[in-house]
Amino acid sequence: MAFSEFHPLDGNSLREYIKTVPSLSSKLGNNFDDLTIKEVGDGNLNFVYIIVSSAGSLVIKQALPYIRCIGESWPMTKERAYFEAMTLKEHGRLSPEHVPEVYHFDRTMSLIAMRYLEPPHIILRKGLIAEIEYPFLAEHIADYMAKTLFFTSLLFRSTTEHKRDVAEFCGNVELCRLTEQVVFSDPYKVSQYNRWTAPYLDRDAEAVREDNLLKLEIAELKSKFIERAQALIHGDLHTGSVMVTRESTQVIDPEFAFYGPMGFDVGAFLGNLILAFFAQDGHANEVNDRKTYKEWILKTIEETWNLFHYKFIALWDEHRNGSGEAYLPEIYNNPEVQLLVQKKYMTDLFHDTLGFGAAKMIRRIVGVAHVEDFESIADASKRATCERRALDLAKTLLKERRKFGGITEVIAAIQQV
Amino acid sequence: MAFSEFHPLDGNSLREYIKTVPSLSSKLGNNFDDLTIKEVGDGNLNFVYIIVSSAGSLVIKQALPYIRCIGESWPMTKERAYFEAMTLKEHGRLSPEHVPEVYHFDRTMSLIAMRYLEPPHIILRKGLIAEIEYPFLAEHIADYMAKTLFFTSLLFRSTTEHKRDVAEFCGNVELCRLTEQVVFSDPYKVSQYNRWTAPYLDRDAEAVREDNLLKLEIAELKSKFIERAQALIHGDLHTGSVMVTRESTQVIDPEFAFYGPMGFDVGAFLGNLILAFFAQDGHANEVNDRKTYKEWILKTIEETWNLFHYKFIALWDEHRNGSGEAYLPEIYNNPEVQLLVQKKYMTDLFHDTLGFGAAKMIRRIVGVAHVEDFESIADASKRATCERRALDLAKTLLKERRKFGGITEVIAAIQQV
Repeated sequence: MAFSEFHPLDGNSLREYIKTVPSLSSKLGNNFDDLTIKEVGDGNLNFVYIIVSSAGSLVIKQALPYIRCIGESWPMTKERAYFEAMTLKEHGRLSPEHVPEVYHFDRTMSLIAMRYLEPPHIILRKGLIAEIEYPFLAEHIADYMAKTLFFTSLLFRSTTEHKRDVAEFCGNVELCRLTEQVVFSDPYKVSQYNRWTAPYLDRDAEAVREDNLLKLEIAELKSKFIERAQALIHGDLHTGSVMVTRESTQVIDPEFAFYGPMGFDVGAFLGNLILAFFAQDGHANEVNDRKTYKEWILKTIEETWNLFHYKFIALWDEHRNGSGEAYLPEIYNNPEVQLLVQKKYMTDLFHDTLGFGAAKMIRRIVGVAHVEDFESIADASKRATCERRALDLAKTLLKERRKFGGITEVIAAIQQV
Repeated sequence: MAFSEFHPLDGNSLREYIKTVPSLSSKLGNNFDDLTIKEVGDGNLNFVYIIVSSAGSLVIKQALPYIRCIGESWPMTKERAYFEAMTLKEHGRLSPEHVPEVYHFDRTMSLIAMRYLEPPHIILRKGLIAEIEYPFLAEHIADYMAKTLFFTSLLFRSTTEHKRDVAEFCGNVELCRLTEQVVFSDPYKVSQYNRWTAPYLDRDAEAVREDNLLKLEIAELKSKFIERAQALIHGDLHTGSVMVTRESTQVIDPEFAFYGPMGFDVGAFLGNLILAFFAQDGHANEVNDRKTYKEWILKTIEETWNLFHYKFIALWDEHRNGSGEAYLPEIYNNPEVQLLVQKKYMTDLFHDTLGFGAAKMIRRIVGVAHVEDFESIADASKRATCERRALDLAKTLLKERRKFGGITEVIAAIQQV
């Protein structure tokens, strides 16, 4: 049969592929006459096709054995599609409202077929650049993070389940290594992949490479990223991994998923909102100072953390007599100690969040992959000014994260820049 | 063939087994006429046979699918023998002077054949009770710990090697769960397995179960034990897992091995030395106050940490331009930052060591498995006094560990009890 071994698909072979898979054919009403197939992969890694017929639609994503945006010179296992499909299914089970349904997974072809997030869904990052407010975003993302992180952690699960899944996701090592390199290493050394808004930020990039205290802290976070199997994290939860409408929030692209520290997900999301905040001045002009929108972003940052905290603790309280290994009810069943352990857990998670969030901000300014929030500011000098503000705040957050007592102090620090 | 599936061996079937394995037969000079076989398993879990002929000797250890000291009512996978054999080989490769050679491993039979540690080798714990000084003990154990922990950590290895081995050792989950239960859970709740020197320590045991700050700290250590894959640790490095003569130090029984926090090994050893120290007053009498021996134990505690620290840092310096993922030379190649990161790493490891060491002390006084150091003190009142001193110190170490600036402060705290 034609698809018994891996090969990259194009529009024509994709059509043939769909015909051989009943669950996909039926999604399209078994009607291939009016099929439209559009390649839309604007990410860094994969090919993505939208397939629409008069009777239905779906998205097909195929991983190729290299990084798309760099090419065959940077090989990357296509097995990442397996971990992405596993995580879409697991996170989708835990938070079905915010994860697109998987229709079909083909490991041989490294191919995932899933729900097409129809217009007006757009990538959240583009919405943030376009000054669109999403009134339910904080609530939705908080819900997704609380559920996916809580239910895959030892607060809910036994050690047996935990170690079984940790072992499985150790297989996603190549994607973990990519994160280690581009987030925790490259920005802190001379690397051919690094770039920044030159010449304005030359001195800033150099300062990152010469900051011993920053290097001390990034080392601690890197070790925690590799060593600490706290929960099944998305692994790349920036604003480009979220699709939104006013009412809908959908998390996509968990191919970097593995058992890692929760703060890496929460930090990725908040850190990218902070980047969006600092980019607004670059998008402002005489008729629109974007002041109101900046306030909305700050409110969303604050609410995301507060709602995440609230929902996470609510899940903990609800399941505190369950089979989670971390805090056995026979030991932690008095209100006083319960309060103590929850406070400590959330404080540690908050500081992890600030550290990882800051690391993700820094790498987007002086590392290999930048964000459209800044890239779309045409005036390089203006862009550099925005980026420098974000960078300076990120350095403070990374080095001083343990001094921040709560999210309001972070908001204050952002406003003071 | 007779040995194609698992069955427990006795003296007779063991003889037949050896005959079928050429590498074992030859160790005994292929002479089975004058063979002596002695069962000596005094541990909690396994059967151990010493086999001696006029031409040679070996030890055979077989894991049965339950915990020996409790019986078939507490099942325990015999697959633990696989992880023990893997670890004996890996740690033996890294520290051949201090790990007995493995001659043969049979996964089906859960059977390890290894070097017989001939007399006058005895279990270190028995030597500590018998007031024997071991002038090289600190040096040897420090060497074993520094090498096995450094070379299996991200200070030396790539993420790829690390995740491959972490995944493999996730399979040893049943033994990890046993540790979680008896070290981090049972002592802090009412459990049918707990016991203590009653009635003297009734109130002390109750106090452990009611100490919220202690519970807060033990929860942090438990999560670190489960989640943090820092190095391939022995997992049960107390003084009963070490065999000694004056000149030789051999670490045995790593069936609890997995990728966990380094401080669990270092702490287990130091914590058990502290237990030995507090037991001495129970062994003292009119003609022998054991004062000199107590001084020797304190000196050994101090030297073990100091030599471990020295050797670990020496390995780090030697391999700092290697392929270890944690501190890439391109980032950490200046002496100032190198000093900073090493100081932080060792301080964190020191505090982990105190925490885990204290946890291991506590569980030996109010948990299921006690130590002969105390058990051999016949006078229950006297024993309780020794145990209470150890317990009080352990509680302080666990709760205040971050306030200890170095091992001399720990020694001072021990002396002040």
